[in-house]
This record gives sequence, structure tokens and C-alpha cells, in this order.
Amino acid sequence: MQEIVVDATKLHDFARTLCDKAGLRPEDAEQMAKLQVQTDLRGVHSHGTRALPGYLSQVLEGKMNPQPELRIITEGPGFAVVDGDNGIGHLASTLAMQTAIEKAKVTGVAAAGVRNAGHFGAAGCYSIMAASEQLIGFSTTNTGHPSVAAPGGAEAVVANNAMSYALPIGDGHPIVLDMACGASAWGKIGTLRMYGKPIPKGWLLDDKGQPTDDPGNSRLLAPAAGPRGYGLALIMGILAGPLCGGLMACNKADDPSEHFFMAINVSSFTDYDAYVAELQHGIDKIHASKTAEGVEQAFLPGEIEWNNYDKWRESGIPIHRDHLQSLAGIAEKLDVAIFWEW
Amino acid sequence: MQEIVVDATKLHDFARTLCDKAGLRPEDAEQMAKLQVQTDLRGVHSHGTRALPGYLSQVLEGKMNPQPELRIITEGPGFAVVDGDNGIGHLASTLAMQTAIEKAKVTGVAAAGVRNAGHFGAAGCYSIMAASEQLIGFSTTNTGHPSVAAPGGAEAVVANNAMSYALPIGDGHPIVLDMACGASAWGKIGTLRMYGKPIPKGWLLDDKGQPTDDPGNSRLLAPAAGPRGYGLALIMGILAGPLCGGLMACNKADDPSEHFFMAINVSSFTDYDAYVAELQHGIDKIHASKTAEGVEQAFLPGEIEWNNYDKWRESGIPIHRDHLQSLAGIAEKLDVAIFWEW
Repeated sequence: MQEIVVDATKLHDFARTLCDKAGLRPEDAEQMAKLQVQTDLRGVHSHGTRALPGYLSQVLEGKMNPQPELRIITEGPGFAVVDGDNGIGHLASTLAMQTAIEKAKVTGVAAAGVRNAGHFGAAGCYSIMAASEQLIGFSTTNTGHPSVAAPGGAEAVVANNAMSYALPIGDGHPIVLDMACGASAWGKIGTLRMYGKPIPKGWLLDDKGQPTDDPGNSRLLAPAAGPRGYGLALIMGILAGPLCGGLMACNKADDPSEHFFMAINVSSFTDYDAYVAELQHGIDKIHASKTAEGVEQAFLPGEIEWNNYDKWRESGIPIHRDHLQSLAGIAEKLDVAIFWEW
Repeated sequence: MQEIVVDATKLHDFARTLCDKAGLRPEDAEQMAKLQVQTDLRGVHSHGTRALPGYLSQVLEGKMNPQPELRIITEGPGFAVVDGDNGIGHLASTLAMQTAIEKAKVTGVAAAGVRNAGHFGAAGCYSIMAASEQLIGFSTTNTGHPSVAAPGGAEAVVANNAMSYALPIGDGHPIVLDMACGASAWGKIGTLRMYGKPIPKGWLLDDKGQPTDDPGNSRLLAPAAGPRGYGLALIMGILAGPLCGGLMACNKADDPSEHFFMAINVSSFTDYDAYVAELQHGIDKIHASKTAEGVEQAFLPGEIEWNNYDKWRESGIPIHRDHLQSLAGIAEKLDVAIFWEW
């Protein structure tokens, strides 16, 4: 078996303890554990606890501030920019999205940027925060170094930025789109490599800009849907970049990341219950729609991930041994006992 | 020759006269002509004057109100919803984007929806309005009937909605991404059919949800980049739909369209000149980046269209004879003389 099933609550406590021991404040350790295990529960391991050893190593090596003093450096009725004080991105991003939500409840729409912070994990974590308060959430990030070619390009000019929308639908989990703008998320390519599976043709390019089959070598991604993924990647990197006082990916070396969040208050625009009723009517039709042979049903964006979430919260999360090995490594450094049996 | 080169100013005057004769108010006729010829100049004929005979026929048949009383039915510091009074979509959309721009200059970010209106042409027309005032613009629309399948689906569940971002870059034309969420815009498929060119494989699906080569038959599009285009199409249809008090595409019959606009005031978030300087630095790198063999250079989103614009404003716009034939048809109905020689 490549995977071990671990209990979600135990994984949460373990992740929190690791963050605690690495020097984060107790409330920040709790928030990190919550967001990362939520991401694991949704099956997006690449952006959940698998990323934790990397974050904590940066803290232990003194490259990242474990107790950042988050500061709103500019704000107005519908906007804010948060300085992340070179801390883990999740912390400044949580504050920024909460700020956007509170402002949007007053103005109808609001946005908040983060600068000078680390990676923020899964974009969906933040858009979901808005949806859980009956707002439409949007989040994006500048992943920090170029890895995606322009159409016809042979070198990386834009980062493989992620963007996410989450929309409340009434009872039940929100619609969640969480996508990379390149042909794939690098995390997904990492997962395929970890499982020894082939990388779909058309994702990776060689240094002449031609599609390549060689999974081990390339660090250059094609854009998703050509000019569209390229355009979205570039624009997301400007929203989460120069708009927040940061740099474009192609101008970055080891510079920190920027992130950008937006919240739209549904009940400013229309009656919330009417909005929900119309969505439910449409969702029922989508669920009942005709599919190609061998396809069980049409799902909403994020629905497959929520099905994992509901199931795995009860039965435990299947996690690859290499992922657990990496967690065990950082646990040993921090003198924390592991809770699973090999 | 399939194309005739026509003068842009003469085309503008011709389009304005057609709108005038169809009963639009003079200022509305002028705005329609401006947006449609701008779209032709950018080479997006499918959404420029080629669409005009369709709009004006709806007016002449009494299906669309030539002189809508536009009304802001709800608004707050950072939001508004405009009722389009069953008029041509361009008119209510212009008001909505202008409203979002004015509000965003105060609050930092603002959005405005349109309901009860017709098709709005090219999404880029409205995002560009924001960019020309140093704001980042976003626009989207619910094209009104489902024509795109879910991943694995065999029937249309979402509309082929368009979305556009435009970003100011200082001097020079803004970055403009204007994209459909399906594998292609229907207008582009129409153009290929008009020129007798093949439809790229993977765009169209048959009624079993399988890719088809047959250009003449299918009315079912695959989503762009699978779950991503599907997710974006669904979400754009909720922003420009239930959020504005309208319907989801899969619940529509002959119902009017909704549109949605957003403006982000760059100078609320950061120093505008610093933003421009950073963008120019990045743009220079992208323009100088390495390309695959046979590819001239990497372009910014929308740059190829702006190159058309700059060239064709001087030398005239090449327009397909079928497109001109259709304009001549509506001109005859409205007793307007055509200005080109066959």
C-alpha cells in the first residue's frame, strides 16, 4: 500500500503541534492546521500538509518570520493592503480575506491585497471563507517565479498562478473553482511523479517550446487553453503583484509573494433567498444532465473534493507514505511524536 | 477577394445612421457605432458590426426596446444594479461600467450588474473603459442559452459566457484578455464556417458527448481546459445571472441577458506610476523572451488586436463580403445607402 489512512482530527492536532514547536503563535498554529487539513480533506494534498515541512523549514532556517506583525498599510471603504511581515502566507491572507468580507458587507464589493508574505497554500481556502458567510469569494496569488510559457514561447514568462472562486449555494458546500492557469498545477505534476504515473502530453514543454513526454526534466509548462491560461496567469500576477506594490513574476528572484482577495456581498445585489433558489434549480438540472458513456454524472466545480471531505472526515484521509515520511522528518527535527503506524 | 477594405470613419457613420434610423436616441446610436467599430478595428468581427443587423432586426420586430429608460434599481457605496428596460445590452452595460468606475474611484473597488437587457457585444469594450481611466476593468456576461457541456457531459448545461479583464499599462493600449469559457467563441466558429475553414478538433461535441469533426451539425461545445472552462462558464453565468436577479442559463428560454462589471482603482492600492513602471519592466522582458521556431515574438493579451486597430484605423478594415452583404440587407430595410463599392 502506498497510502496510510490517518484520522483528520489527529492530523490537525499534529500539524498544530508542529507549527507551535516551530515558533508560531498558538492561534496562528491553529489556523495553519485548520487550513492545511481542510485542504487534505478535499484531496488537494499538494497544497495541504504536504507543504507544511517546506514552510516550517523556512521558519527554522530563519528565512521566514514565525510571528509576523501583520499590518494594514493602506485602506479605504472597499479596499486594503496587508503587509505580511515576511510570515507564512496563510496568516496575512486570512486577515486580508476577513477584511475584504467585512468591508464588502458594507460597500457591496471589496478587495484586499497581501504583500511581503510567503506562499498561501490552496487558493480555495480563502474564497471558501467568503462563501461560508454568504458572499462570493475570489482569491489569487503570484506563485513567485515564472514557469509558464506564452503561446508559442520557449521560456517561462509568467508564474503558474492559481485563482479561485467560491459561491454560496444555501445549505451544503459552496461551488468552488480552484485552478492553476498553466496546463496543470505543479503540485499535481509532483503528485503524478510521486505515484510514478505518466504526465499527460501537452502539459510540459522542452527548452525549444515543444511539447515533451519526459516527466523528469522539464520545468516549463504550457498555458491552459493557450492564450487564455497565459492571459489569466499574467493578469492574476498583476492583481497579486504590482497592484499590491509587488513585482511581476518575471522580475522576481527570491522576493516574497503577493496575494489578492475579493468578496461580493450577494444580498447587496439581490435577495439572497431568491439567489439560492435559482441556483438550486440550476444545480438540480446540472446534476440530472445527460453524460457521455461511462461518466457517472456531471459535478459542480469542487463537488468531487467536497465528497472526499465528507467521506474522509469520518473514515480518515488516505495519505501517501512519502508525504508522511516528509512530515515525520520535520516532526523529528521539532521533537514531535508521529501518531500513525507505518 | 472575399474581403473588401472599408474606411473606419465611414463604417462608424454608417453604423450610427443605421441605429438612428432604427429608432435609437442619437447619443445611443453614436455609442453603439463607437463600440462596434472599435470591435471591428480590433479584428473581432463576430462581435462588431457583423452583429448589428441582428440587434436592429430585433428592434424592428418589436422584440427589443429602441429607447430604453435605464434605471438603477439598487445601489450602495460599491455596487449597483441597472435595469436595461429590454434595450440593446451595450447601452445599459455602458452605464453600469461607468457607474462601477465612478464608485471605485471612491471606494477602491466597485461592481455593477445589468439585468433585463440584450446582448452586449464584446466583453472587452467595457473592461477597456475602466483601463482608459487608469482602473483595472472586468466584465462578463450570460450569453443566455446553454451551449457548453460539463466535463464528461453530453448536453449543454452552461452558456459559452465571455469574460474580459483590461489593465492599464501607462502609455499605450491596455492589456486586454477577452475570452470565451467554452473551447471557442461561437462567433469564431461562425467566422471559420464563413471562410470555409476546418473547425479544430476538440471544440465541438456530438450528442453523445464525443468530439466531432463535423462543423455543420453540432451546437455543443467542449469547455476550455475541461473543468476550468466549465467552472468559469458556470460562475460567470451566476455573476451575470442570479447575482443580478436573473436566471441561470440552463433555466432560460427567451429571457433577457444579464451582465456584470467590476472596476479596481489601481491608485487606491498602490502608487500608480510605480505600478506602471513595474509593468513596463515586465512587458519588456515578455516581448524579448525566447520563442519556439517560427514564432515571431510573445505578445501581450490583446496586443495582436491592438496592432490591427492601429493599422486598420489608417488603412481601413478588411471585412468579409458576407458580413457586408448582411449590413447591406439591413441598410436596405432602413433606407440607408451603403458607402462601399462591391
